[in-house]
Amino acid sequence: MRVPLVRKVLNENDRIAGGLRERFRRNGTLCVNLISSPGSGKTSLLERTLASFDPTRRVAVLTGDIQTDNDARRLARFGFPVRQITTGGACHLDAGMVERALAEWKIDDLQLLFLENVGNLVCPTSYDLGEEARAVLLSVTEGEDKPLKYPATFHHADLMVLNKIDLLPYVPFNAELACENARRVQPEVEILRLSCTTGEGLDRWYDWLNRL
Amino acid sequence: MRVPLVRKVLNENDRIAGGLRERFRRNGTLCVNLISSPGSGKTSLLERTLASFDPTRRVAVLTGDIQTDNDARRLARFGFPVRQITTGGACHLDAGMVERALAEWKIDDLQLLFLENVGNLVCPTSYDLGEEARAVLLSVTEGEDKPLKYPATFHHADLMVLNKIDLLPYVPFNAELACENARRVQPEVEILRLSCTTGEGLDRWYDWLNRL
Repeated sequence: MRVPLVRKVLNENDRIAGGLRERFRRNGTLCVNLISSPGSGKTSLLERTLASFDPTRRVAVLTGDIQTDNDARRLARFGFPVRQITTGGACHLDAGMVERALAEWKIDDLQLLFLENVGNLVCPTSYDLGEEARAVLLSVTEGEDKPLKYPATFHHADLMVLNKIDLLPYVPFNAELACENARRVQPEVEILRLSCTTGEGLDRWYDWLNRL
Repeated sequence: MRVPLVRKVLNENDRIAGGLRERFRRNGTLCVNLISSPGSGKTSLLERTLASFDPTRRVAVLTGDIQTDNDARRLARFGFPVRQITTGGACHLDAGMVERALAEWKIDDLQLLFLENVGNLVCPTSYDLGEEARAVLLSVTEGEDKPLKYPATFHHADLMVLNKIDLLPYVPFNAELACENARRVQPEVEILRLSCTTGEGLDRWYDWLNRL
């Protein structure tokens, strides 16, 4: 299994990401980078997650899109700090964008920071954002061969969230095969099956966050 | 509405794409570029399309993926010439990849050539492949705001295929709003609603191809 790794402008990005990672660790901030195709449910998962949190929890979200602040508006309803990064054409978040967004923001007392990447199963993989863990979402409507077609993305994932399992009765999707394919490119990956619509599996997602 | 256009290495790509376009026109080959997120149904639409064609029709497919030849194997079952372009990490097809794939292939008597792009709603947009028409697929599982979030992709589309409409009863998707959003970024775009599972709307897809 070949796992290509595109190393675009990686040195400058890595340098900034290294600084972010050091800062997150020093401040006790757990940073999680969420990556998926457009429409796989990153924002819905964050909505469910924020809704479940005690309002005293120090959580924030930076959410990336090429255009619109739709996601930030969806997520801001839960009372936690949320900022939109509008990339204006760029197909991914990079560490510099995260650093600039945080510079205008008091985040040093955060316990948890979610980075919702631009919806793209290819390019975000190559950009370290200083995160502690990376979760890749795969929706059951996308087909079970995606880990094999986008191996770098799944190879660099700590967690694969198999999302929208409420739709399994209506789509030709072999969940076992999808998990097997993910483990072929990343034998260590954890896998959760969940549905933001029914709530099934969300407890395991919270467990995963708590174990980080 | 701002429509960003990323012009990466565009001059060299445009030069090759111009040569391809001239060649396609000279040879009477209609070339269609299919773009969408991973798992929106490009390959399924091509399966249905090839299955519907008379075996004497001179049709071929070039299908792009970062890794695997799964799509080429799925499409080769219909007896028409199919080639996989494995980009090995690149997040899009470019005109040079198409030119090289065609150089090894007798295609000058083709009536119709489909280019199935890498599953990515961002980067393929910036690469002209010499096509006559560009179709963007949006699956109803992806959310109706995608045209606004990925405006360049929808702005440069001749056709938007709203796919997987058989799943509408099971997902919170407002099809009218999705079409309205697409027309906000591209007032001239044609829109087809279809399902490769039930076959609904395929006749309008064939009509569109025949009108090109």
